[in-house]
Amino acid sequence: MKFSCDGLELSDAISVVSKAIGSKTTSQILEGIKLVCEDNKLVLTATDLEMSVEKTIRAEVESGGETVVPGRLFGEYIRKLTNEQITCELNEKNQLNISYADSQGCLQCMDVIEFPTIKEVERNDYFEILKSDFKTLINCVNYAVALDESRPVLKGILLEISKANNTIKSVAVDGCRLSLANKKLNMATNDFKIIVPGKNLTEIVKMMDGDDTVKVYVHSNNIMVDLGDTVIINRLIDGQFINYKQIIPHDFATSVTINKEQLENAIDRASVLSRIDKNNLVKFDIKEKTLTLTSNSEIGNTKENITVGLKGNDLSISFNSKYFTDCLRTIENSYVKLNMNSAIQPCVITPCEGDDYTFLILPVKAR
Amino acid sequence: MKFSCDGLELSDAISVVSKAIGSKTTSQILEGIKLVCEDNKLVLTATDLEMSVEKTIRAEVESGGETVVPGRLFGEYIRKLTNEQITCELNEKNQLNISYADSQGCLQCMDVIEFPTIKEVERNDYFEILKSDFKTLINCVNYAVALDESRPVLKGILLEISKANNTIKSVAVDGCRLSLANKKLNMATNDFKIIVPGKNLTEIVKMMDGDDTVKVYVHSNNIMVDLGDTVIINRLIDGQFINYKQIIPHDFATSVTINKEQLENAIDRASVLSRIDKNNLVKFDIKEKTLTLTSNSEIGNTKENITVGLKGNDLSISFNSKYFTDCLRTIENSYVKLNMNSAIQPCVITPCEGDDYTFLILPVKAR
Repeated sequence: MKFSCDGLELSDAISVVSKAIGSKTTSQILEGIKLVCEDNKLVLTATDLEMSVEKTIRAEVESGGETVVPGRLFGEYIRKLTNEQITCELNEKNQLNISYADSQGCLQCMDVIEFPTIKEVERNDYFEILKSDFKTLINCVNYAVALDESRPVLKGILLEISKANNTIKSVAVDGCRLSLANKKLNMATNDFKIIVPGKNLTEIVKMMDGDDTVKVYVHSNNIMVDLGDTVIINRLIDGQFINYKQIIPHDFATSVTINKEQLENAIDRASVLSRIDKNNLVKFDIKEKTLTLTSNSEIGNTKENITVGLKGNDLSISFNSKYFTDCLRTIENSYVKLNMNSAIQPCVITPCEGDDYTFLILPVKAR
Repeated sequence: MKFSCDGLELSDAISVVSKAIGSKTTSQILEGIKLVCEDNKLVLTATDLEMSVEKTIRAEVESGGETVVPGRLFGEYIRKLTNEQITCELNEKNQLNISYADSQGCLQCMDVIEFPTIKEVERNDYFEILKSDFKTLINCVNYAVALDESRPVLKGILLEISKANNTIKSVAVDGCRLSLANKKLNMATNDFKIIVPGKNLTEIVKMMDGDDTVKVYVHSNNIMVDLGDTVIINRLIDGQFINYKQIIPHDFATSVTINKEQLENAIDRASVLSRIDKNNLVKFDIKEKTLTLTSNSEIGNTKENITVGLKGNDLSISFNSKYFTDCLRTIENSYVKLNMNSAIQPCVITPCEGDDYTFLILPVKAR
C-alpha cells in the first residue's frame, strides 16, 4: 500500500472520522482508523460500534491496500503536516512510513482483520429534509436528552416522520422537562418512528453544511446519513419511547406573554445567587401585568420585575433556573408564552407565533 | 454609603482587582473586594497578602462609606449588568442593595475592619522603563520559573537593575533550564537586585497597555507599579538568588546556526511520539551540515533532517522536547544559535543577532 495526498485534506478527514472514536473504548482496535486506498482515493473509517463515520479523499495511489492506524496519534501527527504533501507507505512489518519534505515518521499499525465490518444500510427507505431544518430540529431538543443510564430510550431523540403530511417531529425528555420541535420534510418513503442516540445525532448535524437537502436512510436498526464524501451510519435505540403526547396539557388557567430576552437576562442574574445554594431555585410571582422573579440565598437575593401580558389567574410558581435557561436559549422568537395551571403542574412554553416548538418544564415545590 | 456608576466600568474594575483574589484562600475576608467611595470616585481593592491591586473608577457619590463585598459573587452579578447604570446603597445590616432599571439585588457584605491594611510604598526609589520592554522582559523568562516549592527563591524572577548602565536583566531558573533577558531602562534612582514572584509579575505585565513608560517603585520588601487608575503592590521574595553567571558557559566546542521555525516544527512533530513514553526525549545528531532530529517510542518514530551551519565538532545530544518548545516560542528572531560542548553539558541558545536573550537547557542522558 502506497499513496500520496495533501496534508490538510488528510488532517481534516481524520478529524471528521475521529468523532466515531470512543473516548472510553476498551478495545484497542476501536481506537484505530481504517485506511483503504484504491482507484485514486483514500477511504478513512472509524467506529465505536454504535456510530461509524467513513470519509473519502483524493489520493494518488501507487499500490492499493489497507491497514488500521492508531487514530489519535495519526491525527496529532498529520495535524502538524497540513502544509506538506505526504506520502504513506506500508512496510512488511505493518508499519506506516509517512514521508514529507526531507523527513519522515513511522507508525506501528494494527491488524486490519480485527477491525469491525460495517454493514451497508439499504437505500430503499428514507426521508429527505433541508440540512438547516434537520440541524434546527436536533439542536432545539438535544439539551433535554437524559444523561443518566436508568432509561436507555431517554438517551435518544425520538424522530417521528409522517409520509402523508410530509412532517417530522423530534422529541427529547428527561425526568423534569420535555422539548419538541416540528419541521416540514421534502419527502419520505414511509412513516418512521425511530429513536437515535442524542449525543451522536448532535455530532451528525455538526457535520452538515450547505443549504441543500440530506437523505436519511432507515433500515432495520440503523440510520445512514450520506453527505457525499462523508457517510455516517448509526445504530438506533431499541424500545418504546415515552408517550409524550399524554404529558403535554392543552388547557391552561394562566397564560403569560413575555419578552424572551428580558426573561432570559433576569433568570441569568437571579441564577448567580440561586446557584450558591445549589438548588437553582427561582420564583415567579405573576400578578396583574407584572412577573416578579426572585431568588434567595443566605448571602443575598435578587428581585426583578418584568411587565407581561396575562390571561387568566394570578400564580406563584418556582423552577430550576437551569431548565429555563436551556430552553430559552434555543428559542429565536422575541416573545414567548408561559402556559400554566397551578404551582405543581408543568409549565408549557411556546413561541408566540407558530407551533414549531413546545417545551415543558416541571415546577419545583418552593420551600 | 451610596453611589451610582456605570455597570461596564464597575465590571471591568472588578475583573482587574480580582487578580489579587487568591484561588485557595483560607480566610473569607481575602475573598472580598473592599469598596471605598468618596469625592466622586469609587476605589476597589483586593489582596491575597502577597499582591494587592487597587483600582479607581468614576462614581456619583451621594454619601461616602466603605464595605467589603464577596468578590466572586459581586463580579459575576455585575458582569450581567454591563448595560445598566447601577446604584449601590449599604443598609444598616451591612447589606449592599444593587439597583438597576426596575429591579434590584442584595448582597451580604463583610466587616471592613477585618480587611487587611495595605501599606503605601514610598516613592523615593524606582526604575522607569517602557511598558512594552517590561512586558518582553517578563514574558521571555517566566516559563522557566520553578513550579515546585522546594526552593522559594526560584519561584521568583530576579530583576537586576544597573543605574550606571541604565540596564535591567531578568532571570528565571528551574532545575533544568535558565532564561535571561536584557533591556534598556529610561532611568533608575539606584542599583536594585530584587526577586519578584513570577506568577504575579506575569499578571502585572498583563495589566499594562499603551506604549508609554511605567515607574516601578522599590521600598523595603515591596514593589509598587503605578498605572494611573490601577496601583499594584507586591511583596518581594526574601533570600539569595542562584549565582546564574556561574552556570552559563562561554566557550563552546560545537556551535550550530539553525532556522528557528524549522527547528520548532521538527520538535513539535517529534514530540507527538516522544510524549507517549512520557520522557519527551528528542535526539539531535549534528554532523557536517545537517542536524538530524529523532524521537522513538514503541509505537513509532520520527526522523527529521534540517540543514544547519556548523562551527566545531560533530555531536550527539538529547533533550526534553518541552524545554526546547518553551524556549523557542519566546524567540522572535529567524535564526538561533545552539552552543554546546558535550552530550552532558548545557546547551546555550541565543538569537543570532544581539545579546538580548540567553537560554540554557540541560541535556538528558540518552538511553
